[in-house]
Amino acid sequence: MESKPFFRFLFFFIAIAFLFLFAWTHLHYAPSPGVTTLLDCASNSPWCTSSKNRFQSKQPTLTKTPRASTSQRRHHESAVPRHPLDPLTIQEFNKVRKILSSHALFKSSNKYALHSVVLEEPNKELVLKWKKGQPLFPRIASVIARANGVSHVLTVNLETDNVTVLNTAPPTGYPTMTIEDMTSATWAPLSNAKFNRTIIERGVNLKDVACLPISLGWFGKKEENRRLIKVQCYSMEDTANFYMRPIEGLTVLLDMDTKEVVEVSDTGRSIPIPKATNTDYRFSEQKLQQDLNSINPISIEQPKGPSFVIEDEHLVKWANWEFHLKPDPRAGVVVSRAKVRDLESGVLRDVMYKGFTSELFVPYMDPTDAWYFKTYMDAGEYGFGLQAMPLDPLNDCPRNAYYMDGVFAAGDGVPYVRSNMVCMFERYTGDIGWRHAESPITGMEIKEVRPKVTLVVRMAASVANYDYIVDWEFQTDGLIRIKVGLSGILMVKGTAYENMNQVEGQENLFGTLLSENVIGVIHDHYITFYLDMDIDGSDNSFVNVNIKRQETSPGESPRKSYLKAVRNVAKTEKDAQIQLKLYDPSEFHVINPTKKTRVGNPVGYKVVPGGTAASLLDHDDPPQKRGAFTNNQIWVTPYNRSEQWAGGLFVYQSHGEDTLDVWSERDRPIENKDIVVWYTLGFHHIPCQEDFPIMPTVSSSFDLKPVNFFESNPILRAPPYFEKDLPVCRPAASA
Amino acid sequence: MESKPFFRFLFFFIAIAFLFLFAWTHLHYAPSPGVTTLLDCASNSPWCTSSKNRFQSKQPTLTKTPRASTSQRRHHESAVPRHPLDPLTIQEFNKVRKILSSHALFKSSNKYALHSVVLEEPNKELVLKWKKGQPLFPRIASVIARANGVSHVLTVNLETDNVTVLNTAPPTGYPTMTIEDMTSATWAPLSNAKFNRTIIERGVNLKDVACLPISLGWFGKKEENRRLIKVQCYSMEDTANFYMRPIEGLTVLLDMDTKEVVEVSDTGRSIPIPKATNTDYRFSEQKLQQDLNSINPISIEQPKGPSFVIEDEHLVKWANWEFHLKPDPRAGVVVSRAKVRDLESGVLRDVMYKGFTSELFVPYMDPTDAWYFKTYMDAGEYGFGLQAMPLDPLNDCPRNAYYMDGVFAAGDGVPYVRSNMVCMFERYTGDIGWRHAESPITGMEIKEVRPKVTLVVRMAASVANYDYIVDWEFQTDGLIRIKVGLSGILMVKGTAYENMNQVEGQENLFGTLLSENVIGVIHDHYITFYLDMDIDGSDNSFVNVNIKRQETSPGESPRKSYLKAVRNVAKTEKDAQIQLKLYDPSEFHVINPTKKTRVGNPVGYKVVPGGTAASLLDHDDPPQKRGAFTNNQIWVTPYNRSEQWAGGLFVYQSHGEDTLDVWSERDRPIENKDIVVWYTLGFHHIPCQEDFPIMPTVSSSFDLKPVNFFESNPILRAPPYFEKDLPVCRPAASA
Repeated sequence: MESKPFFRFLFFFIAIAFLFLFAWTHLHYAPSPGVTTLLDCASNSPWCTSSKNRFQSKQPTLTKTPRASTSQRRHHESAVPRHPLDPLTIQEFNKVRKILSSHALFKSSNKYALHSVVLEEPNKELVLKWKKGQPLFPRIASVIARANGVSHVLTVNLETDNVTVLNTAPPTGYPTMTIEDMTSATWAPLSNAKFNRTIIERGVNLKDVACLPISLGWFGKKEENRRLIKVQCYSMEDTANFYMRPIEGLTVLLDMDTKEVVEVSDTGRSIPIPKATNTDYRFSEQKLQQDLNSINPISIEQPKGPSFVIEDEHLVKWANWEFHLKPDPRAGVVVSRAKVRDLESGVLRDVMYKGFTSELFVPYMDPTDAWYFKTYMDAGEYGFGLQAMPLDPLNDCPRNAYYMDGVFAAGDGVPYVRSNMVCMFERYTGDIGWRHAESPITGMEIKEVRPKVTLVVRMAASVANYDYIVDWEFQTDGLIRIKVGLSGILMVKGTAYENMNQVEGQENLFGTLLSENVIGVIHDHYITFYLDMDIDGSDNSFVNVNIKRQETSPGESPRKSYLKAVRNVAKTEKDAQIQLKLYDPSEFHVINPTKKTRVGNPVGYKVVPGGTAASLLDHDDPPQKRGAFTNNQIWVTPYNRSEQWAGGLFVYQSHGEDTLDVWSERDRPIENKDIVVWYTLGFHHIPCQEDFPIMPTVSSSFDLKPVNFFESNPILRAPPYFEKDLPVCRPAASA
Repeated sequence: MESKPFFRFLFFFIAIAFLFLFAWTHLHYAPSPGVTTLLDCASNSPWCTSSKNRFQSKQPTLTKTPRASTSQRRHHESAVPRHPLDPLTIQEFNKVRKILSSHALFKSSNKYALHSVVLEEPNKELVLKWKKGQPLFPRIASVIARANGVSHVLTVNLETDNVTVLNTAPPTGYPTMTIEDMTSATWAPLSNAKFNRTIIERGVNLKDVACLPISLGWFGKKEENRRLIKVQCYSMEDTANFYMRPIEGLTVLLDMDTKEVVEVSDTGRSIPIPKATNTDYRFSEQKLQQDLNSINPISIEQPKGPSFVIEDEHLVKWANWEFHLKPDPRAGVVVSRAKVRDLESGVLRDVMYKGFTSELFVPYMDPTDAWYFKTYMDAGEYGFGLQAMPLDPLNDCPRNAYYMDGVFAAGDGVPYVRSNMVCMFERYTGDIGWRHAESPITGMEIKEVRPKVTLVVRMAASVANYDYIVDWEFQTDGLIRIKVGLSGILMVKGTAYENMNQVEGQENLFGTLLSENVIGVIHDHYITFYLDMDIDGSDNSFVNVNIKRQETSPGESPRKSYLKAVRNVAKTEKDAQIQLKLYDPSEFHVINPTKKTRVGNPVGYKVVPGGTAASLLDHDDPPQKRGAFTNNQIWVTPYNRSEQWAGGLFVYQSHGEDTLDVWSERDRPIENKDIVVWYTLGFHHIPCQEDFPIMPTVSSSFDLKPVNFFESNPILRAPPYFEKDLPVCRPAASA
């Protein structure tokens, strides 16, 4: 980034900051009662996507069904809920805001912020009974707010205007930061003289400083009783990729509520700021590469349009699938009421009541002063959905994609639209659904092959430097693949070293020297999914189908051994705390013990892990206590509507007293109950030079796969492709 | 399959058999010397793809480059080798046949068969030095033959006509079966009265019998000193999917050389043959499913044609990749001389000298009489390439695919063409090469996303019932993904049970009841890849980068622990016998210790396992001794041109004396040497009803990924998609 735009940017920032301060002090965030307000992101806050953003205005969002597509943008202002799980609408957000503004808690407060305003979903049994056409249940908003330095959980009944304050003092932890918390933290250090002095002494112009708000975890007394954040800064001089230019060792401890600089730790003065050379990744800054340009245009094409229908904005119907889809500020994307049609009976059968990214845990592996605390929990601390930016049509999702907007509330309760936050597209990759060719052995002339077409739901969250791509992929054979891709930019560390030959034998760099003066620090990523499986109904059991070596008895067989599947039904939670073992493998079935197939197998789905990683940190290490939900790869808990966030509802600065690990230790019965499966996908990341200055995507996934759920192969009767059905294409005129 | 075609089929079979017998007895396979012969598969053998096969004539195979495509079929008869690694040509096959026919070994033999005729690749150092335009090295054929009941390995120099007999008596084991071995085994039991009697007594019409040749492994004396096979049969009545109708318990032990029935084991008479209902999978036999039909046509489109060039029939050039590709009768597909262009220097850099599927191991988990021996080694016993049938355009590979034929020799040395055996296509799946969007935190207006386009090389082998899809996928970021998909039809077992409620508590079925009277038996699949990595040259080292928990010292840090990467260079083979452990993880680097990046990291590639399974059988179990190459997931051996087949060169009925495990136990030095990496991909398969009557594809993969091989992200400068570049498509006229 050149310095001029940054200057404007900084000026803008400071101006906004003053406006905020003014609003806080004088207006108490008070909305004009009775006025329906839609926050205009472009003019109101730098963190909203500007209307100048090329991606926002280009891609039409379709109304009702993509098949009958129009290029009109959906009118969020007039949206009304039509399904019990539909997210809050603009009008509902405004009503919440109005109701709260006159509530005692906030009326008397001279400082308050709404950290979360989402639909309080109706009770599960009500939702399960609800049918289209029936009236909705009373709409209730769930609000997490802070007023006068205290966190509150409340509900706002939008029919009765009744506000219920559920609790006022969580044992530890604070709510997810508001975007205002994060942005204000980025400029707060500039009010500190010591900070400014060290910046200048390090040879950085103040106008080139870019700072990041870094959640500081919890390590003891120092991180208690006030809402704190650490801020680290970078030089933006000569690059948009300031992440590669750390001002190493400089950490500002900030009180998030008062914006007071509590401490400036300044340890890395001898470490040079890495050069900007080769760090910019923007297309506009590149010399083109002939070899990579030489790929002829290639595209997924579907000229008759997508085959899915989106009813009432949120209900997706595609092939044999139906599910409810909504953006969520904390989880990113929530998939609910996923049902698959049984092609024998024609009946839609329950598979999953609700699935979403519950929490992330990203510990960095450097115990030194400026790094030890980097143990991010991106959903509960930053808001995984809040960080999901508009997707880039053609590049984030193929051309045939449909886009869904998120509608969220800002810290003052004003709703705003995050456009194109989620995309949905059908995918044909050239992969095969099933095949069989008779071989030379039989000589029969049979070759039957079915192409695989899937439906992908995607979002991409940019939590500062890192980008997480989360895909929910639905297959016609009943499989759901949940895939997480990691891209974006590394969090790197400055170093005096320019070459590995300067490093003494066993010195621990805590990472890899990626470029002169740049170390990519080793870190892990854990993404924990909440999967409320309902296999043909809510009461299910979890079965560990253990694959065991069985030795034969003398004389029984020429074989000495074979493998046997031993079914163990989990009675209580501890039976279902699973650490995966290659040499003690199992299948993990969620079955309906009361429902059998024609030949008597219990119907089920299995969780199929793919490549993954396990957390190896000491269980007593404070970060691992907070991230204890990663102590196992699989957990199963009885359904409990208050247990949705694996790290706890108030994860920020929490001590780890409200994690999945704590809940599971209660060892409640889970057999033939409404159960929730938790799966954690992990990555160890030792950076390498190919990750500099931006990382090629690394992905991993796991599957939810029918196991004796259907009587037989559900795609047996799917047709093959015929040439006559495929589109007719020509190169673009300009190409 | 209706009975009439089968009758014709049987008649045809018997007729062919007589012809073969006649030829063996009277003609000794003697070719007409001097006459160039191309076996016409259609009329000569039922196992060749008939000319009536709709897939053979429809898809044009392109000459020279697909960009300048013509629809002319390649003239294999006139093909000449142009690269030292090019496979034998029709003319060369004919020459080998002519030379051998007058060789003492075969002249005096009244029965001989050529089990393998392939190029004897020139020495690696010669190939590495060779440059396009230089003359080829003397072309030499490597032949594995049996004459008078003895196996021989020989080379035939096609320049000098010199034949060298390398050895005559492998310690144990026999060569890969010829197709004639397999097909003749399928009808041999019909000459046995006891066999025919039991078939009829079980109520099966002889005309409805379909039999499979089943390699019998080795379990002791009974399987020694003669070439044996077991044959099991099925009823084809009312279904093409005879695999679902086993005549359970009936096993015929056959002498493969004499076709003599050695033993008929007939144990399952009380077990009914499962019904044909719902077993046929052919499209022509289905009622269509509306839900799956409702997907609008979708296709990967590339109207300007593919971007790769195939020079001289086998040298593939695409984006920054170049490699030599050839079909192989045993391995299926061989990728050689894989090089990637360094976009900084413009230089093509060595990555892999040779990679291929070395062996498969598929043990079934049922120790009873009719099942214990099913422990297939599909490459060494059946020929993984021999079983690779022509791919189905549009369904096996997308529309933009290019197809490559295999040219192999039959048992009599006559060459034949396996058309469309391998396909190659560019793929865009909607996935993301890399991305970064600035988040609400910084508010900068940056969103940069690059679509991912890859090149896929695919083959599909049908080893009787099972179908293996093997993909080599090349990415522009330097990654190679090797993926194996499993589909096709289960090997099932007949049972008296029709419902699980008839099964006593703990009775072991050895599998899952899939349908009335049908058990899907538990089994494993292991696919072992030979990967002769040459990272910037042949001398490389293998580094186990172990990720270890490091506890901090008291007072060192608020953190108790972090993860550290500890590099262990493998000195000898035993250091590189790797069993993967989730809780003791490592990265597995192949580095060039003498070549460093600008900042001093050794250049390398890493082997990145994905989801996999490990063999749990007793190491002393005879099948596991033979399949001991699956005892570890990763092995590294010093390059040795005789060590290519992980289960041994003569794997059929071998005792396991020539496996990768045996070689590796020598513990040879591997540091800074020309080394070969072996990776085994595994699957445990507990069948489920969805696998009936044909299995949806299950896949797994592993990656070869650059690690400090490039100075920085090699796709940094790749362009994004722009609307103006993408094709313009319309629905097909008929759609």
